[in-house]
Amino acid sequence: MNLHTFAATSIGANLEPKSIEVEPNGTTDIVIKVTHCGICHSDLHMIDNDWGMSNYPLVPGHEVVGEVVELGSQIKHLKKGQRVGVGWQRSACLQCDDCLNGNENLCDENQSTIGNGYGGFADHLIIDGRFAFALPDGVESKHAGPLMCGGITVYSALRHAGMTSGQRIGVIGIGGLGHMAVKFASQLGNEVVAFTTSADKFDEAASYGASEAVNVKEENAFEKLQRKPLDIIISTVPASIDANAYVNLLASDGTLTFVGVPEKPLEIELFPLLMKRRRIMASPIGGRGIMRDMLKVCDTHGVRPVIEEFAMKDVNTAMKKVRDGSVRYRAVLKN
Amino acid sequence: MNLHTFAATSIGANLEPKSIEVEPNGTTDIVIKVTHCGICHSDLHMIDNDWGMSNYPLVPGHEVVGEVVELGSQIKHLKKGQRVGVGWQRSACLQCDDCLNGNENLCDENQSTIGNGYGGFADHLIIDGRFAFALPDGVESKHAGPLMCGGITVYSALRHAGMTSGQRIGVIGIGGLGHMAVKFASQLGNEVVAFTTSADKFDEAASYGASEAVNVKEENAFEKLQRKPLDIIISTVPASIDANAYVNLLASDGTLTFVGVPEKPLEIELFPLLMKRRRIMASPIGGRGIMRDMLKVCDTHGVRPVIEEFAMKDVNTAMKKVRDGSVRYRAVLKN
Repeated sequence: MNLHTFAATSIGANLEPKSIEVEPNGTTDIVIKVTHCGICHSDLHMIDNDWGMSNYPLVPGHEVVGEVVELGSQIKHLKKGQRVGVGWQRSACLQCDDCLNGNENLCDENQSTIGNGYGGFADHLIIDGRFAFALPDGVESKHAGPLMCGGITVYSALRHAGMTSGQRIGVIGIGGLGHMAVKFASQLGNEVVAFTTSADKFDEAASYGASEAVNVKEENAFEKLQRKPLDIIISTVPASIDANAYVNLLASDGTLTFVGVPEKPLEIELFPLLMKRRRIMASPIGGRGIMRDMLKVCDTHGVRPVIEEFAMKDVNTAMKKVRDGSVRYRAVLKN
Repeated sequence: MNLHTFAATSIGANLEPKSIEVEPNGTTDIVIKVTHCGICHSDLHMIDNDWGMSNYPLVPGHEVVGEVVELGSQIKHLKKGQRVGVGWQRSACLQCDDCLNGNENLCDENQSTIGNGYGGFADHLIIDGRFAFALPDGVESKHAGPLMCGGITVYSALRHAGMTSGQRIGVIGIGGLGHMAVKFASQLGNEVVAFTTSADKFDEAASYGASEAVNVKEENAFEKLQRKPLDIIISTVPASIDANAYVNLLASDGTLTFVGVPEKPLEIELFPLLMKRRRIMASPIGGRGIMRDMLKVCDTHGVRPVIEEFAMKDVNTAMKKVRDGSVRYRAVLKN
């Protein structure tokens, strides 16, 4: 079949309309008629080949929502006409220990939607049906896209850091990922402290459920927090942070988890970890089981990303806004 | 009463016989007639005031074993003549969240046996009875001392890093703490890999239950291990280690935990943490609940430290051997 895509034909290029001829495999693949597709910073990294794993023409888009129009013979859990979402991951071996334990996201052979195939900036997406997820009726298509990558990334990280309810949770960075972390944590019954470098985001953070906001640029900003330690802090920013200062805000057995990866290594003082048995971890996207769990939670607890919609044809305008960080907070393309 | 101790009267001094007049408080204190006392590297650090928290005269000894000879009015769980052990911790507030959750070791007001009172290099020890632990009949007094500090430190760290059974566990350093970590992990049904800089410790590590030993000084020593990842690695050495190399040996959701604290901060690459959702943590001694659990496990699973015995009067000879690292693996003084 002919995919009508928007593709980068070389490193860092603007996206151009491009027809690509490719066929579903007839067994495990499904074809999705794309209705919406979120834009993630990783799309930019892939266009720019920042991770050295891009192939061109590169069709971005890994927060894909649409309707199943064709099903491989082995795909029994979906049906034609069904509304589904697809995230960063295109496939995995499904036989390693990680896969069998529901951690397909950790599989050594995991493949990405846009690095190992053509993504959702297109009229159709061909994808392994086992990595497409039925969307709950309550979650609108325009909101579902950003949940599939940004949403699952923070949700899985928070859960694996031990988020339950009744806890006190810090979120570093109120942006595409951070605002969803605030929503998940607060909607699931936790007290949330937002850490931001923009005091103008305080009100927004509060509207998403944060009960406190801290301007990290302010001197002694952390002092008053030390009296009420945090069970979990999630860093959603790619920039380097003062990890030791955050570690000191953690309660006993507390966890500082990273979903944003700074370029430089972390320099960690061990004594503050030791004295309160604290932990540091990092977490990538999420497995298939927790993806379903997240979608259910979004449905039942009203967690939705804050989005700006763009027509698919205006993809380069939208990409520019993502690149300069002016989207509040997640751009979504619409076919 | 008059304690007949061996005390350092100034920083770094040899230990000298010293009588100290002090009374139990009549309510929560007990008096223990010391029969045995292990020697721990922390005794040296305290004599040398390495942590800036020493008071002189300083009576070392925080792996104390003996017989209860006097009980304060509020101590009901022990009786006269009972054999008990005491570790690093002398007391805690018993009312903070940490204490109420069984983590007295993390209490902000925790006090140490030798920093906030007189330790076990003496004929008697006066201590809060709530921090004395009944010893199982199966555990001989000469073996119990080193369990009270070195043993609980590695046992609690391994448990809080998620040690169950059927796992693959790495132990960095085969010394006073490390050899006990090998024993706990292997006796509780785990496969153990010993990491050491001394190839001459391979056979010993095997005799304690390690199924593999790795000479970390050998080039490419880690390569063959990468095919069989480790669920937990515990670092028992105070020296700086190549933490990132160890992180890369961890399985998904694996934990690198520290009980030995190097002087320099750790430099941690985040990407290897992220890709397999790995963790880094550190852990100090253990709370009272897990202390009892450990003693039960030692009794039922035959975990015993390897010791060298010395008469209490030969304390300076023993201390010298501890200082130069030639004890295999834990020195125990006997009254």
